[in-house]
Amino acid sequence: MKALLLLGCPEVPSQTPMAIYAIDKLTDMGYDVTVSSNPAAAKLVKVSDPKKYYKHENVNIDNFLDQVEGSDFDLILGFVHKDSAATYFITYCTLMTDVKAIALVFQRDSSLVEEYAQMVAQSTDAEIIKSKAYHNPNPIRVSLDKALNKLKEENNN
Amino acid sequence: MKALLLLGCPEVPSQTPMAIYAIDKLTDMGYDVTVSSNPAAAKLVKVSDPKKYYKHENVNIDNFLDQVEGSDFDLILGFVHKDSAATYFITYCTLMTDVKAIALVFQRDSSLVEEYAQMVAQSTDAEIIKSKAYHNPNPIRVSLDKALNKLKEENNN
Repeated sequence: MKALLLLGCPEVPSQTPMAIYAIDKLTDMGYDVTVSSNPAAAKLVKVSDPKKYYKHENVNIDNFLDQVEGSDFDLILGFVHKDSAATYFITYCTLMTDVKAIALVFQRDSSLVEEYAQMVAQSTDAEIIKSKAYHNPNPIRVSLDKALNKLKEENNN
Repeated sequence: MKALLLLGCPEVPSQTPMAIYAIDKLTDMGYDVTVSSNPAAAKLVKVSDPKKYYKHENVNIDNFLDQVEGSDFDLILGFVHKDSAATYFITYCTLMTDVKAIALVFQRDSSLVEEYAQMVAQSTDAEIIKSKAYHNPNPIRVSLDKALNKLKEENNN
C-alpha cells in the first residue's frame, strides 16, 4: 500500500515532529510513505532524522501535482494548519477522487480549526480530525492515533 | 564523555529537528547526551523519534538546575533563540564554570542574534556561533557542524 503525506508550511513547531511520527505509524501499518512538501518543510524533516531511520520518499508539493494520478496511492494524509495547506489538500483530493483521504486539522485558535475543517468538508469526502494544538504535539498525536487505528480496522475488513 | 544539550522554548520550528541532529552528532563523537528542556520542548523531541533511535536522557530544565554540578558534564551545548534561553544558558554555565560551553544563537532577526550573542558573551566564556535562520535549518546546521568539527580536533589533541 502507498500513502501520500502532505505537509504545510514549516512555521508550526509541531509539524516536523508529527511528520516523523506519522511516517513511522504508516510504515508500521504496511504503507510506503511519500512526503509531499515545500523545500523548507522537507529540509526540516531531513535534519530531524540524520541517519534516515524513518524511511520515506520526498517530492516537491508543486511539481508533484502535475504528475500524480489517482491510482498511485491508497491513502492521502494531509496536515492542515493554514489556508494554503487546506487548498493543497483539496487540490490533491480532487486529483485522486477515489483515494481514502484524512485531513489532520490543527491550530492554536479553535475558530481557525473550524474554518479549515469547513473548507475541507465543503470540497472533499475526506475524514476530518480536528485538534486545538500548536506547541504541544500530544493532542494532535492522540487524534492521529485514533484515525489510524480506525483505518487499520477498515483495512483488515 | 557527557554532553548537556539545552533547548529553549518550543515555538521555533527548527529547534526540534536541530535537537535530534545535535544528539546524533554528539553521540557519534562519543558523548552520552542529556537533553535539558521544558516539558513542551521535551514532548516535541519525543514525538520526533517514536522508535527512540536517537539515544539520550531527558531532564527538566528547572529541576535539573538544583542538581547539576560542574563535574557532571564535559560539554554544554545551548540553543539560544530567546531571552529566556540565553538566561538559562548563562545560569548553567555559571554552575559549571570549567566545562567547555558552546552557544548556538539563532533567530530570523539579525539584531536579536547580536543581542543574545552579547548577553552570552558578557556573562560566560562560551564559544558563540551565530546564525540568522528560523524555518530553514541549514544555516544553523552548517554552523553547528563547524563548531563540532573544531571541538573534535580539540578533543583529539
